[in-house]
Amino acid sequence: MQPVNVAVFGCTGMVGQQFVRMLENHPFFRISGLFSSSASAGKIYGEHAEWVMETEMPPGVKKMPIREFDMNFIRKNDIRLVFSALPASIARRLEGEIRRDGIAVFSNASAFRMDGDVPILIPEVNESHLLMVEKQKLMYGGFVVTNSNCSTSGLVMALRPITGFGIRSVSVSTYQAISGGGLNGVRAMEIQGNILPFIKGEEEKMVAEAGKILGKFHPGGLKTWDVAVNASCCRVPVRNGHLESVTVELEDDADPGDLINAWTSFRGGLQSYHLPTAPMRPIIFRTEENRPQPLVDGFAGDPHRARGMAVTLGRLRKRKRWIQFFLLVNNTIRGAAGTCILNAELACKKNLIPEI
Amino acid sequence: MQPVNVAVFGCTGMVGQQFVRMLENHPFFRISGLFSSSASAGKIYGEHAEWVMETEMPPGVKKMPIREFDMNFIRKNDIRLVFSALPASIARRLEGEIRRDGIAVFSNASAFRMDGDVPILIPEVNESHLLMVEKQKLMYGGFVVTNSNCSTSGLVMALRPITGFGIRSVSVSTYQAISGGGLNGVRAMEIQGNILPFIKGEEEKMVAEAGKILGKFHPGGLKTWDVAVNASCCRVPVRNGHLESVTVELEDDADPGDLINAWTSFRGGLQSYHLPTAPMRPIIFRTEENRPQPLVDGFAGDPHRARGMAVTLGRLRKRKRWIQFFLLVNNTIRGAAGTCILNAELACKKNLIPEI
Amino acid sequence: MQPVNVAVFGCTGMVGQQFVRMLENHPFFRISGLFSSSASAGKIYGEHAEWVMETEMPPGVKKMPIREFDMNFIRKNDIRLVFSALPASIARRLEGEIRRDGIAVFSNASAFRMDGDVPILIPEVNESHLLMVEKQKLMYGGFVVTNSNCSTSGLVMALRPITGFGIRSVSVSTYQAISGGGLNGVRAMEIQGNILPFIKGEEEKMVAEAGKILGKFHPGGLKTWDVAVNASCCRVPVRNGHLESVTVELEDDADPGDLINAWTSFRGGLQSYHLPTAPMRPIIFRTEENRPQPLVDGFAGDPHRARGMAVTLGRLRKRKRWIQFFLLVNNTIRGAAGTCILNAELACKKNLIPEI
Amino acid sequence: MQPVNVAVFGCTGMVGQQFVRMLENHPFFRISGLFSSSASAGKIYGEHAEWVMETEMPPGVKKMPIREFDMNFIRKNDIRLVFSALPASIARRLEGEIRRDGIAVFSNASAFRMDGDVPILIPEVNESHLLMVEKQKLMYGGFVVTNSNCSTSGLVMALRPITGFGIRSVSVSTYQAISGGGLNGVRAMEIQGNILPFIKGEEEKMVAEAGKILGKFHPGGLKTWDVAVNASCCRVPVRNGHLESVTVELEDDADPGDLINAWTSFRGGLQSYHLPTAPMRPIIFRTEENRPQPLVDGFAGDPHRARGMAVTLGRLRKRKRWIQFFLLVNNTIRGAAGTCILNAELACKKNLIPEI
Repeated sequence: MQPVNVAVFGCTGMVGQQFVRMLENHPFFRISGLFSSSASAGKIYGEHAEWVMETEMPPGVKKMPIREFDMNFIRKNDIRLVFSALPASIARRLEGEIRRDGIAVFSNASAFRMDGDVPILIPEVNESHLLMVEKQKLMYGGFVVTNSNCSTSGLVMALRPITGFGIRSVSVSTYQAISGGGLNGVRAMEIQGNILPFIKGEEEKMVAEAGKILGKFHPGGLKTWDVAVNASCCRVPVRNGHLESVTVELEDDADPGDLINAWTSFRGGLQSYHLPTAPMRPIIFRTEENRPQPLVDGFAGDPHRARGMAVTLGRLRKRKRWIQFFLLVNNTIRGAAGTCILNAELACKKNLIPEI
Repeated sequence: MQPVNVAVFGCTGMVGQQFVRMLENHPFFRISGLFSSSASAGKIYGEHAEWVMETEMPPGVKKMPIREFDMNFIRKNDIRLVFSALPASIARRLEGEIRRDGIAVFSNASAFRMDGDVPILIPEVNESHLLMVEKQKLMYGGFVVTNSNCSTSGLVMALRPITGFGIRSVSVSTYQAISGGGLNGVRAMEIQGNILPFIKGEEEKMVAEAGKILGKFHPGGLKTWDVAVNASCCRVPVRNGHLESVTVELEDDADPGDLINAWTSFRGGLQSYHLPTAPMRPIIFRTEENRPQPLVDGFAGDPHRARGMAVTLGRLRKRKRWIQFFLLVNNTIRGAAGTCILNAELACKKNLIPEI
Repeated sequence: MQPVNVAVFGCTGMVGQQFVRMLENHPFFRISGLFSSSASAGKIYGEHAEWVMETEMPPGVKKMPIREFDMNFIRKNDIRLVFSALPASIARRLEGEIRRDGIAVFSNASAFRMDGDVPILIPEVNESHLLMVEKQKLMYGGFVVTNSNCSTSGLVMALRPITGFGIRSVSVSTYQAISGGGLNGVRAMEIQGNILPFIKGEEEKMVAEAGKILGKFHPGGLKTWDVAVNASCCRVPVRNGHLESVTVELEDDADPGDLINAWTSFRGGLQSYHLPTAPMRPIIFRTEENRPQPLVDGFAGDPHRARGMAVTLGRLRKRKRWIQFFLLVNNTIRGAAGTCILNAELACKKNLIPEI
Repeated sequence: MQPVNVAVFGCTGMVGQQFVRMLENHPFFRISGLFSSSASAGKIYGEHAEWVMETEMPPGVKKMPIREFDMNFIRKNDIRLVFSALPASIARRLEGEIRRDGIAVFSNASAFRMDGDVPILIPEVNESHLLMVEKQKLMYGGFVVTNSNCSTSGLVMALRPITGFGIRSVSVSTYQAISGGGLNGVRAMEIQGNILPFIKGEEEKMVAEAGKILGKFHPGGLKTWDVAVNASCCRVPVRNGHLESVTVELEDDADPGDLINAWTSFRGGLQSYHLPTAPMRPIIFRTEENRPQPLVDGFAGDPHRARGMAVTLGRLRKRKRWIQFFLLVNNTIRGAAGTCILNAELACKKNLIPEI
């Protein structure tokens, strides 16, 4: 397969950098353009971006110029797919414009997530929702596929394998890393030695997105998952990895062993696609008494390209019809850039990327 | 009133230091003895104790010797009341022995908490449970009154004013400060930039103690509060103050304004006793969008001697019959030494301290 | 003495808040105006300021409006003295304008510090430099008195008592708290679990300001202290209190006991003025093996109004002609607002505040 | 070359784990025994060791039993080389005993470091000191080679390339990570949001070891490097990587470009040995204004097996004859296990390991 030329929008931020890092030597995609705001435009990526990834900047992008949005450049360079880490405030306009030009947009922005014909896709969880793009293609030429909010991704991956047990309600309290706020999102004076029990819009997103992702898609539309989800979100002084404390009220009694088995045997149905960024085991269940932990489990996922793509669970407890457990999700990989790339890989394999 | 001579057991640890700090110039009590393990015995408190309180060590204890347990010393010095911050492992034996000698023991240890005739007392919440000591006095001469686990104290104080709304179930996830583990309890390599989703025995204590404290005491015994409580406990890199994320499923719908009113008007019924360590308002409800926070709300409580004795709530949200809120409790004051002293003040006012 | 009406410029930032906090019930000064940028103007202080002080906002300012710079308001309200926490970028213009209107400006900004007729005043260290204002008064009507950079203040206070031993060179490495960067100065992603070995302009300020402050003022001008000072400045993940590691090469051998005596007997010569914010002992020397520490020694200073105004030293070591020690200075009090207020108190006592 | 059978002493601690991690698939060495104290003996490494390395435990050791010291086992398994991470308190006796049995001991313990015939070896810095082992072999059959204290290693590597410029004195202030204290060495309550300006014995070690390592070895003995070194050591709330602020007084003026060139061209003379753990460039000089930083530069070193073996320098400043710079050294790799393994590799290549 010839690599598809892609562009990264919002290339200097935390998620933008994850895109750039994860796309290095990618078998499906080749970065042909780096885009950012006018403040960065014209500068050289290797000189301008405040690189915070744990590995060195890929040599291939070091000398690339950062550009302002320029549809002509995109067309001339046969860019057919855009990875977007744009701020929500401008994503709607810009991603919408690209979509109308026949481009496939894979976006971490929240702007389009709740649109009826736009999937919030986590392939292991709701692969069928990808079909929503057909309607978009008819209307716009291109399409937008979003990934979920970072906290939502961990939650729905943990819930998907056990929805069959009958879920009456879900309560989740989060312990979210500062990287979730981006490079500039959290000030040291706020969080140093402190907990912030508020992240603007986060709880609403978790509730709404979980309902959509776990809903059933059929040609006539989407039937939202109709279970009460209560989310309480906190920022904690940790760099990477969102920990979530989850309480699930089941409809009936269930055997803990069966639940654990449901998680550990979960594969998400992607094996036949051989997607480079798909982890062999999307859910890892730890049996130690004090896991998962952000520092230790943040990069679970195998093979190497799927590092950070597995969600780690542990500490399952059961009291009557209530079960409790903890999960850890890598917020900038599985919760953002990683799932976004996985979505694009799936769309490629399914030949959904529009030709130009 | 002549001050009662008291001793502090376990005087060098974190809670022991809070006892020493809070008893400075106390109108009811005068420290007549400082006790610790044989490793510290014979040393001078001011030289030996690794003082970590935020205010200077009270001058009155600086030159006091630390003693090993010595019943003769207690008798000779007319010590009728002991504040205990002993480790659970030795508390049962030692506190039991003192009780049999007719001493009133106010203990932060968990050893006796679940005994049928020992109250877990939080005066604003379950004042009537103090009557349990009568049975103990008949059997042993003295008695033991415990305060609850640090996390439990915040939870039951928040629940007490709203039990009348009808509670079907409670889920609580905690964000507990390292001071809760004592001076030596948490290692830097474990918690620096990390979250530990496990605190040994903590969740079990929260569930069991909440059931007992919110239960109904009557001459025939105690009727446990029969509501499902699900607790998930984490250690976070914060020095002081346990934050708790609470989800309550109500029996019926309720008006948020009524709930807030129940909290802010809650007084706990102690006003007539004029207890020095009782806060005027045991519950403070913050209306800011990002409160309570450990760093900001950790020392709520008025008057000055009640600093750290108020529990701060905030971020009330409601979805159908579920309400969610955050609370912050000062774990070493309201959650330990402070309530223990408040308990002793109440017992004094009720003339329950045995004469010798 | 009738209190002088004062205004606080830059009232919403960290140092501005310290001014507001420390001026509560001040015997010499009464806040008559709160000023900030146009973004805050028109708002009510109690509603708009993001208060981060450890004590509650003084009731007297809660309902005060925040104003934009307005010379008419200053005149009408007989404001004769301004405390400035303005950003350096606008301080030069604005403070200069006020000075020309006959106002006494006590400023934490660096704008005027190196001007020949403007003192960098730390009363215990260089009281005589206050005379520089006479020349300003002749030229402008009003005058500007600056306090030093936060790190400089601790260093020169530690050096002043021992300059008589003969100093050949000084090397200082700092461990500076995030509060030194202001509310917005340091991003969590930069400093969480990290050290930043660079603070823009800080090392240059330490060197230049120490030379000026420790210099000799005489009617003809100032003779700079001519000793090599080498400064290396780091930001550390600590909230308050700058720790400094100081190595001093002496001209000759010296007895450690004599050095300690020079520090502990140092009073700074302010006693006769009875200044409210002056600590009884400007230098505290700790003999413990592991002090000073930011968390423990950050608020040294007595009486209460001088809390945070004493500099704490410890760990004196000597090898041949080199001595080494650590010092801790409260960066927002002694290193900023506190010294600024102390400067104004001294000027008042000396009747230097211009009448209007 | 047939791999040499080796044992790791003190295999469960932080440095012991680094040995185990770095020896995985090592071309020269094969772990044949894991030793620890009686408390761990008999347990299985994979079940008992509290693994804190960032990569998974090597499969080859997961099922190995942990043993108590047992000379018979060592002989039977033809173990000719021991890597020791023993606590100083027992290292002298145990390492001495092994040496007398003809074993080559490469030790991170400080016990033997200052012995006249024991080298503190950092191959790039003082390769010739390895000859000291000949005398030991004559006396004991085996020998001990130590690596330096973690802080010392960074300092001497930075100084070695510039000693030729003429050094009059050195002042160094450290910012040392908590991992330097081992798994249990630092308590969270001490260091959370704090700086500890004292590490027992550290400053003395830096001064003494630097003098020995930078000294000249000749058949008659060692001539200590006779330059005044002043060290001030602090613990900071950082997990990995010791930052050091260094001020060097030169004998004469020097050109900064020449200094930087001396560092960047420094190779340490090991190239011809092709040692697996030797970094191609032992010193990396960063030109950014805010480097080195613990979080970013902690694992510098190339090729992969030398990750963490390079020392990173930056922020060179010069004022007259004083130069200042920062350095960062990975304390558990270059400052401990890594150099220890490098030392053993060099000894192997030089055929110094005794045959049994």
